[in-house]
Amino acid sequence: MSGSRRSFNSDNVAPVAPEVMAALARVNHGTCHSYGDDPETRRLTDLARETFECDLVIHPVATGTAANALALSSVVPPYGGVFCHRIAHINTDECGAPEFFSGGAKLLALDGAAGKISAAQLAAPVAHAREMGVHHVVPGAVSVSQATEWGTVYTREELTALAAAAHEHGLVVHMDGARFANAVAHLGCTAAEASWKCGVDVLSFGATKNGALAAEAVIFFRGELAREFELRRKRAGHLWSKQRYLSAQLNACLEGGLWQRNARHANALATRLSQGLARHGLRCVQAVEANEVFVALPAPLIAALRSQGFEFYEWPAPPGIELPVVRLVTAYDMQAADIDGFLDAIAMHATHAAR
Amino acid sequence: MSGSRRSFNSDNVAPVAPEVMAALARVNHGTCHSYGDDPETRRLTDLARETFECDLVIHPVATGTAANALALSSVVPPYGGVFCHRIAHINTDECGAPEFFSGGAKLLALDGAAGKISAAQLAAPVAHAREMGVHHVVPGAVSVSQATEWGTVYTREELTALAAAAHEHGLVVHMDGARFANAVAHLGCTAAEASWKCGVDVLSFGATKNGALAAEAVIFFRGELAREFELRRKRAGHLWSKQRYLSAQLNACLEGGLWQRNARHANALATRLSQGLARHGLRCVQAVEANEVFVALPAPLIAALRSQGFEFYEWPAPPGIELPVVRLVTAYDMQAADIDGFLDAIAMHATHAAR
Amino acid sequence: MSGSRRSFNSDNVAPVAPEVMAALARVNHGTCHSYGDDPETRRLTDLARETFECDLVIHPVATGTAANALALSSVVPPYGGVFCHRIAHINTDECGAPEFFSGGAKLLALDGAAGKISAAQLAAPVAHAREMGVHHVVPGAVSVSQATEWGTVYTREELTALAAAAHEHGLVVHMDGARFANAVAHLGCTAAEASWKCGVDVLSFGATKNGALAAEAVIFFRGELAREFELRRKRAGHLWSKQRYLSAQLNACLEGGLWQRNARHANALATRLSQGLARHGLRCVQAVEANEVFVALPAPLIAALRSQGFEFYEWPAPPGIELPVVRLVTAYDMQAADIDGFLDAIAMHATHAAR
Amino acid sequence: MSGSRRSFNSDNVAPVAPEVMAALARVNHGTCHSYGDDPETRRLTDLARETFECDLVIHPVATGTAANALALSSVVPPYGGVFCHRIAHINTDECGAPEFFSGGAKLLALDGAAGKISAAQLAAPVAHAREMGVHHVVPGAVSVSQATEWGTVYTREELTALAAAAHEHGLVVHMDGARFANAVAHLGCTAAEASWKCGVDVLSFGATKNGALAAEAVIFFRGELAREFELRRKRAGHLWSKQRYLSAQLNACLEGGLWQRNARHANALATRLSQGLARHGLRCVQAVEANEVFVALPAPLIAALRSQGFEFYEWPAPPGIELPVVRLVTAYDMQAADIDGFLDAIAMHATHAAR
Repeated sequence: MSGSRRSFNSDNVAPVAPEVMAALARVNHGTCHSYGDDPETRRLTDLARETFECDLVIHPVATGTAANALALSSVVPPYGGVFCHRIAHINTDECGAPEFFSGGAKLLALDGAAGKISAAQLAAPVAHAREMGVHHVVPGAVSVSQATEWGTVYTREELTALAAAAHEHGLVVHMDGARFANAVAHLGCTAAEASWKCGVDVLSFGATKNGALAAEAVIFFRGELAREFELRRKRAGHLWSKQRYLSAQLNACLEGGLWQRNARHANALATRLSQGLARHGLRCVQAVEANEVFVALPAPLIAALRSQGFEFYEWPAPPGIELPVVRLVTAYDMQAADIDGFLDAIAMHATHAAR
Repeated sequence: MSGSRRSFNSDNVAPVAPEVMAALARVNHGTCHSYGDDPETRRLTDLARETFECDLVIHPVATGTAANALALSSVVPPYGGVFCHRIAHINTDECGAPEFFSGGAKLLALDGAAGKISAAQLAAPVAHAREMGVHHVVPGAVSVSQATEWGTVYTREELTALAAAAHEHGLVVHMDGARFANAVAHLGCTAAEASWKCGVDVLSFGATKNGALAAEAVIFFRGELAREFELRRKRAGHLWSKQRYLSAQLNACLEGGLWQRNARHANALATRLSQGLARHGLRCVQAVEANEVFVALPAPLIAALRSQGFEFYEWPAPPGIELPVVRLVTAYDMQAADIDGFLDAIAMHATHAAR
Repeated sequence: MSGSRRSFNSDNVAPVAPEVMAALARVNHGTCHSYGDDPETRRLTDLARETFECDLVIHPVATGTAANALALSSVVPPYGGVFCHRIAHINTDECGAPEFFSGGAKLLALDGAAGKISAAQLAAPVAHAREMGVHHVVPGAVSVSQATEWGTVYTREELTALAAAAHEHGLVVHMDGARFANAVAHLGCTAAEASWKCGVDVLSFGATKNGALAAEAVIFFRGELAREFELRRKRAGHLWSKQRYLSAQLNACLEGGLWQRNARHANALATRLSQGLARHGLRCVQAVEANEVFVALPAPLIAALRSQGFEFYEWPAPPGIELPVVRLVTAYDMQAADIDGFLDAIAMHATHAAR
Repeated sequence: MSGSRRSFNSDNVAPVAPEVMAALARVNHGTCHSYGDDPETRRLTDLARETFECDLVIHPVATGTAANALALSSVVPPYGGVFCHRIAHINTDECGAPEFFSGGAKLLALDGAAGKISAAQLAAPVAHAREMGVHHVVPGAVSVSQATEWGTVYTREELTALAAAAHEHGLVVHMDGARFANAVAHLGCTAAEASWKCGVDVLSFGATKNGALAAEAVIFFRGELAREFELRRKRAGHLWSKQRYLSAQLNACLEGGLWQRNARHANALATRLSQGLARHGLRCVQAVEANEVFVALPAPLIAALRSQGFEFYEWPAPPGIELPVVRLVTAYDMQAADIDGFLDAIAMHATHAAR
């Protein structure tokens, strides 16, 4: 299904990892109870508890938008508000899913460099909301994207400070971890250290972009927050009858650390790519810390690359960048040759342009 | 994953059909555009048009609840009402999904023998709603389950009359076809004759219970009704990034008529089962027209079967039936031996009880 | 604004009681804080506590639909269910307001003679819902209309038994008291005895039909249920900036027992009317216990009365009644002469018809 | 109910205008049909058509939040977006009412000097939304506050340009006219010239802040947009049974131009106030064009004024203003002496501070 050139559009253009396909085949025999009362789903809880080294409640769903919106609607009332970065996926790319699932809660957008929000930004709007009383939505949660939408990664210190401030203000801390695997790989820490040990209360744990077919999980580190989840999931049509095939995907990712191997691979290729771009004097507009590279390119170069069949998206440029910015996403299944082919095309264009 | 005895709990306890697994493997190479801009999804539209012999809009989703709720919310406003049978899945088994997706529309439950509603039942409540003006929700649709929740099948004449009455009253006709395949197999007609030729406007076409992993489709026979669908699907978290794996399942079902072969097989086993039960003097409380058998059994027999490892659900008995009623569901992957094993266990119990 | 004949359409066709108009004039001077931080609203709490002889939380709103829907949405989650009579105002006359305010909760309609539901009806559907788990909405409340939609009144024994059963099942007890005043007048007990002493947790206390301009109150007898109310009220546009004018209406009703005087008056006229009808051999199809009379009338008599300018609504006849049924509502401002005029018209028709 | 000092908190602390009280008394006799089928409501349509010199659909409600949220939900789908200024009342002061009524639509906040947004700001976000397809909410409307939240007034040229751009992008133009009367008084034009002649499609016409008890109206200048309104109003509990008392308030405001007399009076007092402040060297941080004065005051002066019983709110200061900013709102019932008393207190403080 691919063209001759590897697409850099997104990590979700990649196929399913062989280990995940094998897991689907392995569970595909005989009958089993539907709606999650199956061995694979029980195994998922066990594996997640091992991986995160704590007690937790985990529920699988098929998409990241569902994971985020179900998680948020479980912890924020209809008259509530969720702080997030202005460019957070939940705020810009989910067609209002958090508002829909929550019954009309409001996303309270904050700005911040590198796609990050910080502890210091919460106090003023929380105080304002309190002062406004019933006229203002009630701040109920903070949602951070990890890795961020700019491909950067919150340090554990940043996260810990943000979560501490959030908790002080009575807010639940949600993490949109569509690329949590890549963030953990970058941080070089454990899953626990990257989540609940920093103060994360609810995590949308992504697997689809990291080799699964369609599988994400909502993980509650505070069990009492999970009370409503299963009802909301069913009501939203996100409870699978044949749930073994959902859990099996996640199990394949967690077992033996595939999720980390895949993420490290994708991250390494992003680093390779950014270093190659630097050799051509091309400037990444954000630190490359996960599997996304945002680089400012001259328009003719963009056109040339596209004409050769390379695919990628233009992205709104951050302030101060005049050239168009493109996003290049690496994935678990890419090869060094895919990166080098792209860099070669740039080199060729440079040579050509220099003549 | 199965016990030694075949489960009759539901057709969703079955594994995925080999043809569907093969299709997943076949599409699992290379990159392709995400969110439905892929060859499998385009092929799905083609196959559906061939199968239904008409122009149509088709969108895949992973669950039947999502298909029904998204379909209904596309055609009924928040202040609208949907006529359905009191025991319709949308009314009793989806945790309020239609209400959630539609923003609070109301299901207007009707009674009727064999799980069916009829044309004659619409006029009075529609007239009442009109008379009540703004005080009453506005009737917007009729939803029929085909096959019904009692395992019976609307005849084409019944459907045609119902749809004609609905249209006369300005109502959209939705069909919950979680077991549409089994209904068509029973009717012995074409997909077109069982749907739009009878007046169906929107169909939830089920595949999960018929061999898919997690795949249903919403089919709009009147394109203008589909206008909002893709936005509502995204917003509800039901748009898959790797949609090729959703469409491929449906394609495997449609290609070469697998959906009909599987359904005919399941239906035939249900007939075999009901005939076997009859030989033991056990009474089916509804006509067996699809792949579900509802039979009144003495409590000791139920206990005996369960103690031998057979699984099935008790069901609310229809009026006039004193014995407990159980539901026995056959599936595409069952064998005649599974049926006969169950019947043997009944025979053995009868012999035993007779001594 | 009236025609020459008094309308029996509803108690809401009546004007505002002079005492209420006087109260509006009395508070109409100077500035005061908006949004409920005013002396009239504080007085309302005091008066309500005196009237109901208990601690309570009371919030005024302008309409009965708002009172009911806000009350229910405060105590039932979006995935919840509310038991009520099939003909309850919330189920038939509010255009889906409870569904809207609650985010899609489901009304679970029960049948029952005289517009009443009974304790014994709860156990089976609650057990069914529990057994169905996430597939079924979670029963969260029972809502009773007092007086009922058939103009009857639950006895205190009936209410106490129903509320006890509800509490046993973990359900909150809501009372739609649009005509609570008339019910209390009929019961001849205190407000406390007719509400929380029977187990009512939340009461929609009606005043508009009993002499107010536009004023109802939601009264929480269990303060913890009121936690969200003010936010939901604001969010629904039901918080008045000039709230003194809302509270003043309710104060005028409560002060000096006007609400009971008005209700007793209306009830007495309904009794006078039903007795007069009986003298003409006309049969009330429900016990006349509040201010509504439902009577079966021959079609020619209905036509004759209408031609003379009398106004009233036809009502769906209860089973077994062949003649059309009409509803005749008396109000606080009616006079005996209004009743007698109506009865005279009937007498005249009878005489005429007898010739 | 007032203290000895006039409150500058808001125009909603004022009592009801005598003309409005008289109108309520005038309609308070006899019965009339409920739910808007009454002469006052018919008269309201006539008066509004005269006032706005066009055909239109008008519906009264009791609060501004209801007017705005019902208007927006009538013209924007749940998956839609509404452009508005970041400080728009709908975005900051209505506890998420637009999100609630619309089923989760998103407010798309724009910045802009003087509380205004401009035509040029729409193109980029509309283009971005289109490009994002189903991932982004669909821009459906622009909402402007007139007068703005900063007490400024869009010129007719500004409005015309904004509305033209909005229409070009397929957006409906909504005006939050809580202080529309003050804006028209400032513009010195007709109601028509200030609304539909500029391109406004739907207007929330405020009366409560301008002398009514609790009355606003939603006016649709394009009748087809009003199609759903009455159902949504009923469903939201905003349909009054005794609607004559709602319409009569608005009629009293419109008849004989009371709404303009009251607004001119309040505006003139605001001008008097701002001029007086200027004489004391106190700087208004926004042009004073309606009945609100935003002025930067030294903290000691604020404290001194408050200690003397003056009431007003602090407001978030615009960029570049170091002193605290307070909002002073004048109202239809204020007298020059109220203004002068405030200015005298400032003068006294200045004298005192100068010693």
